[in-house]
Amino acid sequence: MSRIEKLRKIIYANSVAVIGASQKKGKVGNELILRLKEFGFKGKIYPINMNYAEVEGIPTYASVTDIKKPIDFALIATPKESILDIIEQCNTAGIKGLIIISSGFKELDDDGAKLELEIKKAIEKYDMTLIGPNCLGIINADPNIMLNACFAPLNPVVGKIGLATQSGALASGIINILPQIRIGLRQMISLGNQTDINVLDIIEFWEQDDSIEQILLYIESIPDSKRFKEICERVNKKKPIIVVKSGRSVIGTKATASHTGSLAGDDNLANALFESAGVIRELNLRDMFGTAQVFNNCNIPKNQKLAILTNAGGPGVLATDTASDYNIELAELSQETKEKLKKILPPQAGVNNPLDVIASATREQYTQSAEILFASKEVGVLLVIYLYITEQNDVGIIQDLEKLKLKYPDKQVIAVFMTTTDFSERLKKVVPNCTIPIFKYGIDAIHGLNRLLERRKLLQQKQPEKPIFKVDKTAVKSIIKEYQQKGMKQLSTFASLKVFDAYNIPLAPFGSAKTIEDAKKIAEKIGYPIVLKISDYKISHKSDVGGVVTNIKNKAELEIEWKALFDRIKSFDAKGNLECVIVMKQISGSQREFVAGIAKKQSSHIAMFGLGGVFVEIFKEIAFRACPLSVNDAMVLISSTKASKLLGEVRGNKAADIEELKNLLLKLSKLVEENNEIKEIDINPIMVAKDGSVFAVDARILLD
Amino acid sequence: MSRIEKLRKIIYANSVAVIGASQKKGKVGNELILRLKEFGFKGKIYPINMNYAEVEGIPTYASVTDIKKPIDFALIATPKESILDIIEQCNTAGIKGLIIISSGFKELDDDGAKLELEIKKAIEKYDMTLIGPNCLGIINADPNIMLNACFAPLNPVVGKIGLATQSGALASGIINILPQIRIGLRQMISLGNQTDINVLDIIEFWEQDDSIEQILLYIESIPDSKRFKEICERVNKKKPIIVVKSGRSVIGTKATASHTGSLAGDDNLANALFESAGVIRELNLRDMFGTAQVFNNCNIPKNQKLAILTNAGGPGVLATDTASDYNIELAELSQETKEKLKKILPPQAGVNNPLDVIASATREQYTQSAEILFASKEVGVLLVIYLYITEQNDVGIIQDLEKLKLKYPDKQVIAVFMTTTDFSERLKKVVPNCTIPIFKYGIDAIHGLNRLLERRKLLQQKQPEKPIFKVDKTAVKSIIKEYQQKGMKQLSTFASLKVFDAYNIPLAPFGSAKTIEDAKKIAEKIGYPIVLKISDYKISHKSDVGGVVTNIKNKAELEIEWKALFDRIKSFDAKGNLECVIVMKQISGSQREFVAGIAKKQSSHIAMFGLGGVFVEIFKEIAFRACPLSVNDAMVLISSTKASKLLGEVRGNKAADIEELKNLLLKLSKLVEENNEIKEIDINPIMVAKDGSVFAVDARILLD
Repeated sequence: MSRIEKLRKIIYANSVAVIGASQKKGKVGNELILRLKEFGFKGKIYPINMNYAEVEGIPTYASVTDIKKPIDFALIATPKESILDIIEQCNTAGIKGLIIISSGFKELDDDGAKLELEIKKAIEKYDMTLIGPNCLGIINADPNIMLNACFAPLNPVVGKIGLATQSGALASGIINILPQIRIGLRQMISLGNQTDINVLDIIEFWEQDDSIEQILLYIESIPDSKRFKEICERVNKKKPIIVVKSGRSVIGTKATASHTGSLAGDDNLANALFESAGVIRELNLRDMFGTAQVFNNCNIPKNQKLAILTNAGGPGVLATDTASDYNIELAELSQETKEKLKKILPPQAGVNNPLDVIASATREQYTQSAEILFASKEVGVLLVIYLYITEQNDVGIIQDLEKLKLKYPDKQVIAVFMTTTDFSERLKKVVPNCTIPIFKYGIDAIHGLNRLLERRKLLQQKQPEKPIFKVDKTAVKSIIKEYQQKGMKQLSTFASLKVFDAYNIPLAPFGSAKTIEDAKKIAEKIGYPIVLKISDYKISHKSDVGGVVTNIKNKAELEIEWKALFDRIKSFDAKGNLECVIVMKQISGSQREFVAGIAKKQSSHIAMFGLGGVFVEIFKEIAFRACPLSVNDAMVLISSTKASKLLGEVRGNKAADIEELKNLLLKLSKLVEENNEIKEIDINPIMVAKDGSVFAVDARILLD
Repeated sequence: MSRIEKLRKIIYANSVAVIGASQKKGKVGNELILRLKEFGFKGKIYPINMNYAEVEGIPTYASVTDIKKPIDFALIATPKESILDIIEQCNTAGIKGLIIISSGFKELDDDGAKLELEIKKAIEKYDMTLIGPNCLGIINADPNIMLNACFAPLNPVVGKIGLATQSGALASGIINILPQIRIGLRQMISLGNQTDINVLDIIEFWEQDDSIEQILLYIESIPDSKRFKEICERVNKKKPIIVVKSGRSVIGTKATASHTGSLAGDDNLANALFESAGVIRELNLRDMFGTAQVFNNCNIPKNQKLAILTNAGGPGVLATDTASDYNIELAELSQETKEKLKKILPPQAGVNNPLDVIASATREQYTQSAEILFASKEVGVLLVIYLYITEQNDVGIIQDLEKLKLKYPDKQVIAVFMTTTDFSERLKKVVPNCTIPIFKYGIDAIHGLNRLLERRKLLQQKQPEKPIFKVDKTAVKSIIKEYQQKGMKQLSTFASLKVFDAYNIPLAPFGSAKTIEDAKKIAEKIGYPIVLKISDYKISHKSDVGGVVTNIKNKAELEIEWKALFDRIKSFDAKGNLECVIVMKQISGSQREFVAGIAKKQSSHIAMFGLGGVFVEIFKEIAFRACPLSVNDAMVLISSTKASKLLGEVRGNKAADIEELKNLLLKLSKLVEENNEIKEIDINPIMVAKDGSVFAVDARILLD
């Protein structure tokens, strides 16, 4: 059985043994039985307890070994000291699935961590599957299952959301919030310490579970960054994945570490992974729920252009401002649409977009206006703003919009209603299954809409095939081997340049010289002005020791500078670690300096590109993506920072050769894919010459 | 009577004539009477209508002239064509205050605008005071007044907020939202077209009205930027002013223009004004209400350090992340506090900040923990996060916090509660006058808290006295006069430099030369390398025509370049507008180039400072403040962009002379204060030399 199939046995269980079931009110072991009963579990419940004949009216067993029937999983809420014994008993009873609610493991102390490790070994030994420990439980609201195996007193409204959370307590909060925004839950998995089953298994499980239409994650760490990218990239194409990952700040990271015992990853890595995989990262729960509400009720619109319908000018203008902040396009209303609107609206109404139907608007005027906008070719999404000003039409308008939604399935609608407190109650009576996302504030509606439009773009985006690069793998392998054999991690500048050369990464013309005669020959060949830089086995920061001389304009200057360079070398390189001197063409650069690089974080190579020069540390205009880079990844790296503007025509310099730059990044990615030993690559700077050509002018490669 | 006293007659009215009062349900003239009655107006209501004997049980008059009693204001809701006549009648009846609800003026068309102008003239002629036209009305919830002169069916909960809005319809939305977040309203003024009374009059009125503790504004334009800054700077010290100004985007601006007929100002100007005046600008209503909720319930904390108390790890970490995003300091718990907490909490609880009392926490544990934190020296503000996980203690915890609040008045508390939908209802019964701001999401709570802490800083901030600069006013006046007499707006480079010199603005050493001999003498004096730049009466973009030569290293080069420059000049300056050639010391700059400038927008001079060089347009790292600049304003200009990092020690260059830079900005401000004819000043670049000294190396001054 595959991991997924094993997980399915738990989530779609037909029988559960509750170990630690209790008759005492308020005890976790009692709450678990209550939840299973209340929610209407369709399978068999076997409470395990030696002291009672029954728990909440269900006959108990003294041990799982007494049941003698197939059990899909054991739900364990006994003190941690008992867990290893219980696993033995479960094995005897033939139980392969476990959910351990109990806590006190690695999240508490070292002893707990040791015990957790033993549990892990036992699980592996018996080929079992474990959710938890230290979790709230799980929920599956499939009508044929109706499994609520949580101890918190909550029963969710049934819907289409899959929620996996690394904070069990948060699940309760979320389950209370969801009905308030008319979102239902299909499955909830409290991940706990993820000793066996982790968030990636859950995502893969949901990939294949058609009842889950949207995946929400709250995580504090990423268990396996390579697998994360791979899985999410694939699953995200089928259903949206929205994640809140905490521990972004240094202090936040500390709080996470003490909270779940997991090592919080570096946030740049997380962002690079999310972005590369197309996962939507929200920074807080408010935005997560806003976005979920939109995805829960809207399809990807055929046409992305927005129309705003409002009965109050101010909120219309505010929504326009916000749409503009998010670069959402407003539809330009056609003459035809305008004429239709003029017929039904008073002359004071502004027949424009935003369409202000003014305070006196009736329900009919709203509905007719909405229909005219829906029916128009130019509008793809409608934002309906309603303020209770003269007539209370709030519920009626939603009713009408529901009808229009059926009639115009290609068009999407989002509502912003500022009305009386009892609106939700009244709405529930008239439109019990409301399918329109309704917000109180335009900002939240538009934030969610923007996510929908971003996903539209992502799904429509074509991924160009990667160009095939001719590379000299053997050359690189042998350089790496040589350094490894010598026990050296830092490649010399010359070796780094040779690695680049082997992968056809564009370099400023250069040669290596040991004597002034070599240098002169190279200089003649590549042409002045030139740069001299030392390639030393020990020294990586060449400039700091005076090992770089720029802007040498002619042979005379070369002679002087060569001598001065070697005078300086004597003072810092007594041991003779100098490999050679690089003689490189000086690229006159128009201040267009960039950096590119790769860093291995956890198991993943992360690529970066951005603004170089003096400004690297100051502006931090750098983008990150996880390797292997796709063509689109490379383009995003190039275009997503403000620095990208420097790649256009700037002050008489030609636009940079973007194709070359993109290929440079793809080649770097290929280089680390094919040479996992590489820990870091640093190209600082990459120069864009006046004619737009792109050159790496320095290189630094570090091995693991 | 002052303008404020006249306004007071309307807002604190004891009698109102409703012109256009109607017996027909749903009519504005009927709604107005209903509102006055329902809300319990303490004064006299005189409905004016020729066709009925009474309206809603109140006897009518055919005309205001028939009342023969003093009337504090007339509330007018008749068709716009009748308004001028009505003003005549009001004058006859001795009525000095008007609120015109009617619309169809400048917001509609040119005819409307003309009529509005005539109304303005009539108002001025009869020394009347007018709110509107095209407004929703006003509310004053003073218990002795209870005036609701609005036509929308809304009666606010009474509180301490003053709300002025340029979108009347929005007022209804807001009045519906406020009770949902437990905020009461004291006064609401729908500004309408602000033909007479504008938002600034209202702010000045509220400055003196002690019943208003917080001012909320929704505006689409700023009527008088100079007065705005002056008034808000003063009033904001007494009570917080929170503003949402729409029309930020280009499209948004268009929507505003069509909506109220007002010309939306430039958004940079608006921001500069808000920041200079210390006004809190929120970009959307959600954030405005969040902030208002915090200010409504919290005082400025004595100690700014935050403690987070939570029963769920995840939300605690998220709050920590968010606090860190806002640079809010978390309190470090003392050993003493930790010991106290350990005594009351289970061992699994993380006795840290955030303090995770874990899912099992009882009401007592919450309350005791909160009290320990309140009682500690290290904590100034407490964020209490509660999720309904095992016991539903939500209302109880709020009850307890209310008591703690009384006991520890110096400490502030904000709550984030994720609980069941009926929480508000249940809370209302147990704590009807809840004084704790309660949010659903940490992000909103922390956004509001951050505003409170910003205000704490603002109020604590000392404003250093401006240094006194010796300046040569006469020299500048005479240069300006000379140019004005010639009808020239653009000062030559030389004239601009002379103006700067007169105000002791630090310039790179320079002289003006007409001959090569002059140039050589100046160069000898200031030392090579030098720059040559032409000063021409017509040409302002000197570089574009080859009028600038940099990096001239010696006399020989000077001779060559001088000749070449004059050869070029011949080709573009046939008419002989060349004034002289500036010979200026070349500042070798370490790439530390900045821009500073002043621009007159509407009636205000706005100062800017930020990153210069190639990067000006790309990074837009520029800050704006309204003149006259205070010392703090100047410091904010210098320090608020990323560019400020370049002012520190960078790559072997000394930190910039901040005092000199600050004075440079203050001198620029003084220059435009004393010479209002100046429309624009542009210094690009200001160079920071290697030794940290600061020099303007170019200047451009434009007159009105």
